[in-house]
Amino acid sequence: MLNDLTIALDVMGGDKGPLVTIPAAILAIQKSQRLHLILCGDENIIQELLSAHKVLTHPQLSILPTSEVVTMDEKPSSALRNKKNSSMRKALDLVKEGKAQACVSAGNTGALFATAHYVLKTLPGVERPALISSLPTHEDNKHVFMLDLGANVFCDSTILYQFGVMGSAMAEEVDGVEKPRIALLNMGEEDIKGSDHIKMAASQLQQNSSINYVGFIEGNDIFTNKADVIVCDGFVGNVALKTCEGVAKLVYEKLKHVLSKHLFARFIGKLLATSLKKLFKPLNPDQYNGASLIGLRGIVIKSHGNASVLAFESAISEAMKEVERQVPMKIKNKLALGLTDK
Amino acid sequence: MLNDLTIALDVMGGDKGPLVTIPAAILAIQKSQRLHLILCGDENIIQELLSAHKVLTHPQLSILPTSEVVTMDEKPSSALRNKKNSSMRKALDLVKEGKAQACVSAGNTGALFATAHYVLKTLPGVERPALISSLPTHEDNKHVFMLDLGANVFCDSTILYQFGVMGSAMAEEVDGVEKPRIALLNMGEEDIKGSDHIKMAASQLQQNSSINYVGFIEGNDIFTNKADVIVCDGFVGNVALKTCEGVAKLVYEKLKHVLSKHLFARFIGKLLATSLKKLFKPLNPDQYNGASLIGLRGIVIKSHGNASVLAFESAISEAMKEVERQVPMKIKNKLALGLTDK
Repeated sequence: MLNDLTIALDVMGGDKGPLVTIPAAILAIQKSQRLHLILCGDENIIQELLSAHKVLTHPQLSILPTSEVVTMDEKPSSALRNKKNSSMRKALDLVKEGKAQACVSAGNTGALFATAHYVLKTLPGVERPALISSLPTHEDNKHVFMLDLGANVFCDSTILYQFGVMGSAMAEEVDGVEKPRIALLNMGEEDIKGSDHIKMAASQLQQNSSINYVGFIEGNDIFTNKADVIVCDGFVGNVALKTCEGVAKLVYEKLKHVLSKHLFARFIGKLLATSLKKLFKPLNPDQYNGASLIGLRGIVIKSHGNASVLAFESAISEAMKEVERQVPMKIKNKLALGLTDK
Repeated sequence: MLNDLTIALDVMGGDKGPLVTIPAAILAIQKSQRLHLILCGDENIIQELLSAHKVLTHPQLSILPTSEVVTMDEKPSSALRNKKNSSMRKALDLVKEGKAQACVSAGNTGALFATAHYVLKTLPGVERPALISSLPTHEDNKHVFMLDLGANVFCDSTILYQFGVMGSAMAEEVDGVEKPRIALLNMGEEDIKGSDHIKMAASQLQQNSSINYVGFIEGNDIFTNKADVIVCDGFVGNVALKTCEGVAKLVYEKLKHVLSKHLFARFIGKLLATSLKKLFKPLNPDQYNGASLIGLRGIVIKSHGNASVLAFESAISEAMKEVERQVPMKIKNKLALGLTDK
């Protein structure tokens, strides 16, 4: 008998593949007895790693043997055409066939995006799926959703508009935010700033009365709780997200250096260490992993390519959360409202 | 007799205008006896503020009275057409006429860019000027130049290529970096990632043997000293730069909060405060102000719109440095080499 929460894992994806995904899978089933994982990948490697972790068989784990792997530098079109027996494709097929409720992959973003788009199809009224994730803000326990984080290099005004509606649904239905504030990321707050497609998206969002559009926002205000959802194209979102990681790491390294130089600071180092770790946790990809590919007729979670075991496990948790909250159905409802209301 | 270093200030530009620029001007001349400043702006306001700071006349200061101001939300085309007597335009005219060696403005970026482009013209072989500035890296005393930071919303492959050549000149001639490593900011390191114009720019840079092109770089590697110059379009650069500021502020605020909670930390707070300030200095726009608009036949420094007195003063220092190092001439030479070599 299947458990009531079944998730398909692309075991071969990511920089370290099964070396990360298998221990993460074991960790995840230890944490939740409701969870069943279908491990899609090279059967020999999976068996070997499972036994290395002293797991031979487990009622919460099953294996779907696959013969191909989508490499990290493979062209999306090639992966889609030529890798029909890949771990990534098979994991998505399981979602399509209703045999899994979500798929988690740390593989090639472009290939995952193209294959998920092809296999699962978009929700009615959605042209392109988007990668969405949440970031910390100055206020404790408040975060901000940002999309697209890299699924689409370029987005025209209609696509940005749809991202705004999808993001609004995500914040409202998943996080329980009332009338989520939607902003467009731009190079200035003034109405005249930015490209024509951003200005057009602004006017489209403004005209939809079910959307609480609050205007343009600049990079320095991503974290100041001026918006619940920030919309941008995938190139800009990807650069912004990765820049955040870069700055956080820079500051953390420099800070450690400063602390190590002070005798008193060394003395209280242990005390501070706990607080510092907690502080940087929301900005550490290890702890803050698992962007969702939304706008599809199924749940797909993209983990960082270089995710650690803990990070990949947290991507699995994210998938469980979205299954429980029925995210695609709720986005579909909001979209139906948003698009007819437009 | 004029001092040997004359800089024109757009006194009216920026969020706080003369309230910031006048005290900054006074500070700058106190620091350098070689410096002469021409204050372009409303004569009454300037006189009033000078006397409020107990300066009635000063041999290092002169005033060029202007009757108009370019507002922060004004369209660049309107500023260019209708504000010929603005403080911004007059300051740029002084550079054009050879009466000042550089201009500093905290005004409307788009208007400054359009007006500087029109008044000063680009160097031979340059299609568009670019905003360039330097950012800190993990290694002490090493920084990285980044361009464009917001002068051009969209840049095609040729423009990105030219930015690479100009950035290389800046790092080589101004900072003395041998064979500066030039990278393109992209959403992945793999060759297949990103838009077509980024891929084309990569191949153009690769073909120029006078350029040390090192490939694509992602946002998280801006600060890891993998490149001396990072090239991107103005929209992406602006978002990335402002995101850096946002993250640095977020981390700083959260850190202060953590420190204030610990008794021991409060005890050594004073000791740490100095180090922390030094640590965040390179990421604090107050201390790290003054991007250059390069590719023009003259020196134009853009200060942050919300610059403080100290920040505006540091933009004036940046202008002095570029005058001393004859930046435009050196870029011109490198460009002549780069463009013929291509």
